[in-house]
Amino acid sequence: MIIIKIGGGDRINLKGIIRDLAELTDPFIIIHGANAARDQLAEKIKYTPKIITSVSGYSSVLSDEKVIELQMMAYAGLQNKRIVELCHQCGINAVGLSGLDGQLIRGKRNQGIRINENGKTRIIRDLSGKPYELNVHLLDLLLGAGYVPVISVPIFDEDNAAINSENDEIVALLHRQYRAERIFHLIEAPGLLGDPGDEKSLISKLNVNQLDEVENEAGGRFKRKVRGIQKVFSYGKTAVFIGDGRSQNPIKNILNGQGTQIHAV
Amino acid sequence: MIIIKIGGGDRINLKGIIRDLAELTDPFIIIHGANAARDQLAEKIKYTPKIITSVSGYSSVLSDEKVIELQMMAYAGLQNKRIVELCHQCGINAVGLSGLDGQLIRGKRNQGIRINENGKTRIIRDLSGKPYELNVHLLDLLLGAGYVPVISVPIFDEDNAAINSENDEIVALLHRQYRAERIFHLIEAPGLLGDPGDEKSLISKLNVNQLDEVENEAGGRFKRKVRGIQKVFSYGKTAVFIGDGRSQNPIKNILNGQGTQIHAV
Repeated sequence: MIIIKIGGGDRINLKGIIRDLAELTDPFIIIHGANAARDQLAEKIKYTPKIITSVSGYSSVLSDEKVIELQMMAYAGLQNKRIVELCHQCGINAVGLSGLDGQLIRGKRNQGIRINENGKTRIIRDLSGKPYELNVHLLDLLLGAGYVPVISVPIFDEDNAAINSENDEIVALLHRQYRAERIFHLIEAPGLLGDPGDEKSLISKLNVNQLDEVENEAGGRFKRKVRGIQKVFSYGKTAVFIGDGRSQNPIKNILNGQGTQIHAV
Repeated sequence: MIIIKIGGGDRINLKGIIRDLAELTDPFIIIHGANAARDQLAEKIKYTPKIITSVSGYSSVLSDEKVIELQMMAYAGLQNKRIVELCHQCGINAVGLSGLDGQLIRGKRNQGIRINENGKTRIIRDLSGKPYELNVHLLDLLLGAGYVPVISVPIFDEDNAAINSENDEIVALLHRQYRAERIFHLIEAPGLLGDPGDEKSLISKLNVNQLDEVENEAGGRFKRKVRGIQKVFSYGKTAVFIGDGRSQNPIKNILNGQGTQIHAV
């Protein structure tokens, strides 16, 4: 099993990725973002998502009701169906699923995010949470019948309300279930960079224990990505590949050794 | 099997419909519209869909690339996922699917629509077509495992491009496959009306042969609906119920004999 995580930036070459994937012989699951599509839609409808920064330094979009609607439209709607369309054009028998469909992904709603506001700490509770359970029955049903799941947020909370969650957490959950031999991240950079401002500072190979070091050097910019990758390894052995989703052949390049490879210790 | 077609108007009581459906014992498939959501979104992003009227008098939205994107967002995204969310809140194990997912619905792209323009006839070819084939394998897989499919446009054309199609045509296709004993239409009216301007002119019962008469009396306003219902009957015996989707208990009211019932001859 290979888990393919496709970033949601607008310079990601979806066609190139899907065309390459059609040549894979391993079974795979796709999980994708759509932040560029969401931001473009938000701008068009003149909605400015609120960005909050927690006291521990994580920045994220405040997931209010409007953001969930934008997610349904941009992630589960436009981007998911465009990817499914491309898949079928390339012979990949894709079925698009949000975390809501068949309760594919259940999460525990966040208790709240502590933020600093005018020097004071206060707690904001939004529609976001951490995924903790998959509908394995539905995934196995589809995988067993030869379908390729193409997954996006939103997911369900404990009360069956749609909430936002991090794709890296969903990747970890999928890996916990399917023990993927390989996990591919397609991003808008050549791979993990020693200096985020310099695309030539690519780190080709490292082991999971060296991630913290890279993170410190990058001044906290990769915090969430690093935590996500560490979590993946905590669920079982795998190899994580971070490749340039903007290139002509994003998957083939990873298979040819380009980008960053992170392996177990 | 019951086929439930939910109209896409903004006065449709989705919660009431889904709550009622949770009490049904028959298996069912939901197919829904989202024209109000689409129109609201189009207005917000300041896109005015072009309306064309064919020489034979049918009016429809010209399905250009932008309309397909709006459909992915409003139909397969927002409305589909809101319905799926409501279903799970009421204990219905719903899986949302567009016609693209697993190539659920394949259509034949329309050759073009003949329109009158400044006294001349010209042909406009848009991204729309007639559904002719279902992925029965995928539907049976889900139905057999206890999932309720919640279906929306777009669908695929012969070249695997996303196209628009009429929900009534999809209902007919589903009936051809599953021979539904009953088909429920939830609309923004008490049922089929003798006089479209008078909600008290409800026609309670009629047979399929009497539809043309009603249509003539209504001055062509039900043209597409009537053709759709006639097509359904041509695929096999059934009973079609048209109920008020705006009411407190849209499905229960149908079961209690409210609305319009159309039966075979």
